[in-house]
Amino acid sequence: MARIVMKFGGTSMAGTERIRRVAKIVQRQQAAGHEVAVVVSAMAGETDRLVNFSREASALYDPAEYDVVVASGEQVTSGLLAMHLQALGSKARSWLGWQLPVRTDDAHGSARIEAIDSDAVIASMQAGEIAVIPGFQGISPQGRITTLGRGGSDTSAVAVAAAVKADRCDIYTDVDGVYTTDPRIVAKARKLKNVTYEEMLELASVGSKVLQTRSVSLAMKEKVRVQVLSSFIDEDAPAADTLPGTMIVSDEELAKIQEGLDMERQLITGIAADKNDAKVILTAVPDRPGAVATIFGPLAAANINVDMIIQNVGRADTDTDVTFTVPQADLERTKAVLDENRPSIGYEKLSTDPKISKISVVGVGMRSHAGVAATMFKALADRGINIQAISTSEIKVSVLIDSDETELAVRLLHTAYGLDAA
Amino acid sequence: MARIVMKFGGTSMAGTERIRRVAKIVQRQQAAGHEVAVVVSAMAGETDRLVNFSREASALYDPAEYDVVVASGEQVTSGLLAMHLQALGSKARSWLGWQLPVRTDDAHGSARIEAIDSDAVIASMQAGEIAVIPGFQGISPQGRITTLGRGGSDTSAVAVAAAVKADRCDIYTDVDGVYTTDPRIVAKARKLKNVTYEEMLELASVGSKVLQTRSVSLAMKEKVRVQVLSSFIDEDAPAADTLPGTMIVSDEELAKIQEGLDMERQLITGIAADKNDAKVILTAVPDRPGAVATIFGPLAAANINVDMIIQNVGRADTDTDVTFTVPQADLERTKAVLDENRPSIGYEKLSTDPKISKISVVGVGMRSHAGVAATMFKALADRGINIQAISTSEIKVSVLIDSDETELAVRLLHTAYGLDAA
Repeated sequence: MARIVMKFGGTSMAGTERIRRVAKIVQRQQAAGHEVAVVVSAMAGETDRLVNFSREASALYDPAEYDVVVASGEQVTSGLLAMHLQALGSKARSWLGWQLPVRTDDAHGSARIEAIDSDAVIASMQAGEIAVIPGFQGISPQGRITTLGRGGSDTSAVAVAAAVKADRCDIYTDVDGVYTTDPRIVAKARKLKNVTYEEMLELASVGSKVLQTRSVSLAMKEKVRVQVLSSFIDEDAPAADTLPGTMIVSDEELAKIQEGLDMERQLITGIAADKNDAKVILTAVPDRPGAVATIFGPLAAANINVDMIIQNVGRADTDTDVTFTVPQADLERTKAVLDENRPSIGYEKLSTDPKISKISVVGVGMRSHAGVAATMFKALADRGINIQAISTSEIKVSVLIDSDETELAVRLLHTAYGLDAA
Repeated sequence: MARIVMKFGGTSMAGTERIRRVAKIVQRQQAAGHEVAVVVSAMAGETDRLVNFSREASALYDPAEYDVVVASGEQVTSGLLAMHLQALGSKARSWLGWQLPVRTDDAHGSARIEAIDSDAVIASMQAGEIAVIPGFQGISPQGRITTLGRGGSDTSAVAVAAAVKADRCDIYTDVDGVYTTDPRIVAKARKLKNVTYEEMLELASVGSKVLQTRSVSLAMKEKVRVQVLSSFIDEDAPAADTLPGTMIVSDEELAKIQEGLDMERQLITGIAADKNDAKVILTAVPDRPGAVATIFGPLAAANINVDMIIQNVGRADTDTDVTFTVPQADLERTKAVLDENRPSIGYEKLSTDPKISKISVVGVGMRSHAGVAATMFKALADRGINIQAISTSEIKVSVLIDSDETELAVRLLHTAYGLDAA
C-alpha cells in the first residue's frame, strides 16, 4: 500500500466525459490498494475566460479580486470530480484551498505556498476517502483566496504530495513522459525512464514545457518523487504503478537504480530548444568600469530576466558592443528601459533580433566527463551552424543560434550524443 | 446618511457591460452619501450550466459537492463587480459566504441562514468600502460551502440587510415594482407605492414572482424594509432614494404612511393568477371517519403540498368525491402515491385536470370589511365563470376556475375592485 497524489490538467478536465474518464483512472489507482489524493486544474479554456472578464473589468485589476474570480475554475472541477468518483461508488470529497487550508503568502496572482495543514486530509484518506483538491489556489494570512500563477497546479500537486508524505506524485500530462528531445523534431527521440530533478529543471528552463519549473524545484527541495504520465491512457489501463512514465528522482536514487541495472549512465540526458528569447545588441557602449552595471541594473529593477550576455570589443578601443538575451515577452519593456537609461549607459545604437534559438544539452553525466561542450561545438561547426553565444552550468551547455537552424541542430546533436533510438 | 443593501439578479450581472452598469448604479448610491453593500447573483445561465454538469456527473449527486460547484457562479460575479467598482474609483471588496461568514445549517442545496457575522463588514462599510457579497451561498457548521436553493439571492440580500442593520434593502428586478396585477394581462394595472409583508407573501405564493417567498418571510420577521426597483433604470438615473419603486413595509408603517396621506386604504391591494397547480379528483371514496386521512397522510409523507380541497357527496350515500389541487410539477408523483395507496383509500376512479387556474384577491383592507368575497363571486358569476373551489385567509380570497378564463377573470376583478388606473 502506498499513498499517491495524482494531478490532472485542464485538457483532462474539459467536460463531463473527460472528468468521468479521470474518475475511472483515479478509482483504479485506489482499487490497487493505495490511498489517493487528486489535484485538478480548471476545465481547459475556463481560466482564460475568467481572466478575460477580469481584464475587461479593468486593465489594472485588483489581484485579490482576480484570485476570487479565477480560483472558481478549479473549485468547479474539484466538486465535479468528487461527484463522478461517488457515482462510480468511491468515497470522495473536495477540499478547497481555504478548507485544507493551503497557506500562502499574500502575493495575489503569484502566491507562494508556505504550508499545507494535512492532518484532516490524511485522516480522510486513511478512512478510504479520495481527497479531491483544486490546484492553483490557497489562502493568504488575511484569509483571502490566493492563486499561484498560471500553471500553478503542478506546484500544488507537489506541495500536497510533500504535505501528506506521499510515496509518489503522478502528473498526468499531454505527453507520456520526458523525452531525450522533442519527438516532433526528432522521430528517434527516446522516452527516459528516469531523469534527475536538476536535469528536469534545466530542461524545463530551456523550453521543454512538460512540468512547471517551480513544481520541479519544490519536488527537489521536498524530495517528492514525481512521475510524468500520459493522461491519454486507456481508462481501462492498469494502475499507474506499472505504467511506463518518466520518474523524476534524486541523484542518489538514480545512482541506485543504475547500479541495479549494471549499466553506465548516458553522458547526456536530453536536448532542448527554446525559441522564446530575443537578442538585444547595444553598439558602442563606452568601455569603462561600471558600464555593464548601468545596463543590467535598470533591467533587473524592472524585473526583466537577462539570460546570455556577450561582450565584444567594439570598433574603437574606447567602446564595446554588448549583446544579451531576454524573454521575447519582455522585449518591448526592455527597449523602453534601455531608451530611458540611454544617457547613463551611453550606447550609440540599440538593435534587436527575435529570430534566435537557444539549444541546450543537459545531463548529470557531464559532471564527471570532459569534452561534452567540444562535441557540441564540433557537431554544429561541421554543418556550418554559427554559434552566437555560449553559456554553461554544471549539467548544461547552451548555445545561441539562428532560429532557422533549430531543428537541424537538435537532430545533429541527438545523433552526436548517441541518443537516437535503435 | 443611510446604510443600504442593494441586490442585483443574474440578468443584471450577465457580462462585462452589464456589470459595469451595475457598478455605476451602486457607485451613485454611495455618492449620495450612503454606506453600501451589494448582493449579487451569478451571471444569467451560469447556474444552469453548473447544475447541468452536476446532473451529468450523477443523477443522485452529493448535495455538498453540488454546492461547491454552483456557488462558484456568485463567487465570480462578486469578484468582478468589486473590480468594476474599483475601476470607477470606489473602494470595494468581495466577501464570500465563508469569509463573512454567512452561517447556515447543513441542508446542502437548500440551506437556511442561521446567522451572519457582520462586525468586519460593517467596519469596512463605515470606512467607505463597498461590500460585495455573493448571494445564494453560506457555510455549514462543518465548514463546507452551502447554497440556499434557487432564487436564494433575494433571501441573502434580506439576511445581510438584517445583519448590518440596513435602513433599506433595494432589490433590483426585471420589473420596476409590484403592480395591482400582471400588467401583461391588464393594461390598466397600477404600480403600488407600498405593500405590506403579508400582502407580498400572499401575492408571491399565488404566482406573482417578483420576490422569492422566503425572502419576504425573512424581511417580515427581521423587519427589513425592502424596496423593489427596476434594474433597467438608466445608469445615469439618480440614487434609489428617489426612484419610484415599491416599498414593502409593515402594517404599522403602512398605517403611518396612509395617515400622512389622509386617504383611505384600498380594500384590495392586488389580484394574482396562478396556473401552476393541477386538480386531482378521486371518485367514490368510502364515506367513513378517517377516509380523508388515508388520502392526505401519504401525500404529506411524500412532501407533496396539497392546496385547495373540496369534498362533494357522491352518487351513493356511502361514498363521496374528493377534489384537491397540487403543484403540476408534483402531479406524476401524486398519482403514483394515490395508486400505491388505493387499497387503503378505496376510491373508484382517479382523474386529473391540469387546465385550472387559481385567482386570488389580496389586501390587508379586507380584514375590516365584509363583502369582499361576495363582490368576487358576483363579478365572476355575472360573466358565467364557474367557480370550482374557494379558499380564504385573513387577507386573501382565492377561487379555482378553468384556466381558459384566467385573463378574463383577472380583468373583471381588477375593474370590480376599482383598481384600474384612470
